[in-house]
Amino acid sequence: MAANDRIPPRVVALDGDDTLWHNETLFSAVHGEFRDLLARYVDAPAEVVDERLLAIEKQNLALYGYGIKGFVLSMVETAIAVTGGRIPAEDISTILRYGREMLSHPVELIDGAQATIAALRERDHEVWLVTKGDLFDQESKIARSGLADLFDRVEIVSEKDEPTYRRLLDRHGVLPEEFAMAGNSLRSDVLPVAALGGRAFHVPYHVTWAHEIVADPSSARFITLETIRALPGALERDL
Amino acid sequence: MAANDRIPPRVVALDGDDTLWHNETLFSAVHGEFRDLLARYVDAPAEVVDERLLAIEKQNLALYGYGIKGFVLSMVETAIAVTGGRIPAEDISTILRYGREMLSHPVELIDGAQATIAALRERDHEVWLVTKGDLFDQESKIARSGLADLFDRVEIVSEKDEPTYRRLLDRHGVLPEEFAMAGNSLRSDVLPVAALGGRAFHVPYHVTWAHEIVADPSSARFITLETIRALPGALERDL
Repeated sequence: MAANDRIPPRVVALDGDDTLWHNETLFSAVHGEFRDLLARYVDAPAEVVDERLLAIEKQNLALYGYGIKGFVLSMVETAIAVTGGRIPAEDISTILRYGREMLSHPVELIDGAQATIAALRERDHEVWLVTKGDLFDQESKIARSGLADLFDRVEIVSEKDEPTYRRLLDRHGVLPEEFAMAGNSLRSDVLPVAALGGRAFHVPYHVTWAHEIVADPSSARFITLETIRALPGALERDL
Repeated sequence: MAANDRIPPRVVALDGDDTLWHNETLFSAVHGEFRDLLARYVDAPAEVVDERLLAIEKQNLALYGYGIKGFVLSMVETAIAVTGGRIPAEDISTILRYGREMLSHPVELIDGAQATIAALRERDHEVWLVTKGDLFDQESKIARSGLADLFDRVEIVSEKDEPTYRRLLDRHGVLPEEFAMAGNSLRSDVLPVAALGGRAFHVPYHVTWAHEIVADPSSARFITLETIRALPGALERDL
């Protein structure tokens, strides 16, 4: 369709974690505590622990999926592995506590999140939340965010790849050229949407989980925004 | 509506775990291994360990939701608690292994599951799968079940209560009198559907997780079936 970029997107979808609310900072903070906890038993530099944790997380991803519970299970596994089983049960309890604290942590909105959704709605876009991860945890976060009532549709998916977006659009009768997506992850929010012909906006967050980092492929068409606040205007300029 | 029970239900929804495929037997088997593992460190009778595990699971439910990952985290917490921290890291690793084995365990269909779905489709019912639990784990199980293509709709929810069913029906424009649900759990599949005016069928499984057990309320209207195979005929007879 030649006029692809000339139709205002009927549907504007937003990512949740690190786009509308802070998430990776919480993981990073706990990761730091975990590193300090293990430093008492391990002589190796912190980077070695980090690498081991990331390797175990990636290995478990096919079984656990994304989310805090899988992260906690991978931390416990890493702690036992890197200490050669010397970690006492008491410290395993501490790791479990990290998880419970993360799961009940207040949801802190990213500056401009609420105002941006309001502006999109005022401009008659249908606003979706499309978020990846643990169903229970995401539902709980959406509820705690106070934003739930502002979305026309909330979709929690286990993976954000091209087939997932295609399925979502098909299910709700939305054409790719009617669809825009904004989020912090090139891998999950931007590239798959650009690939299927939707409009993709990258809103970088200051921390990115190593697993989500991809090489920036110069062939993909997307727009990078400084902050989420720039989205409504960028959608207009991109017509 | 007086003719409530005289309309053939347009939509017939089925539960997954312990209705279409075995699930609780897997939890029970692992629970047994867990009990044996702890028996090496604990003098108290197995029932004490069971009670502690159930109490910890219930306490964590508001944070973890349903599913294997939460179960594993609760087993680790219980193991540390009942052994007073004496459980070695090696045995914590064993508990983590239980979880990975559960998550990759083949999905074993309950006798008659596939034939029943086929019979419902032949009779022009729209067939939904409505299943509760961890999104990633449920999607993986549905894929492994080989049944995915037989459903007109798959809904994975974090809790199966009356508001959840009402939301599902509203979202898809289905009236309660057009809706039937069959499943093994009185608490999750039967009572909420009966309460909102849908037709509810109870297909008991031989094991029920203690958390799902409710007193059988004689006031609720539902039909108990010996096996899932009896569902298509029962829907006809109930007209």
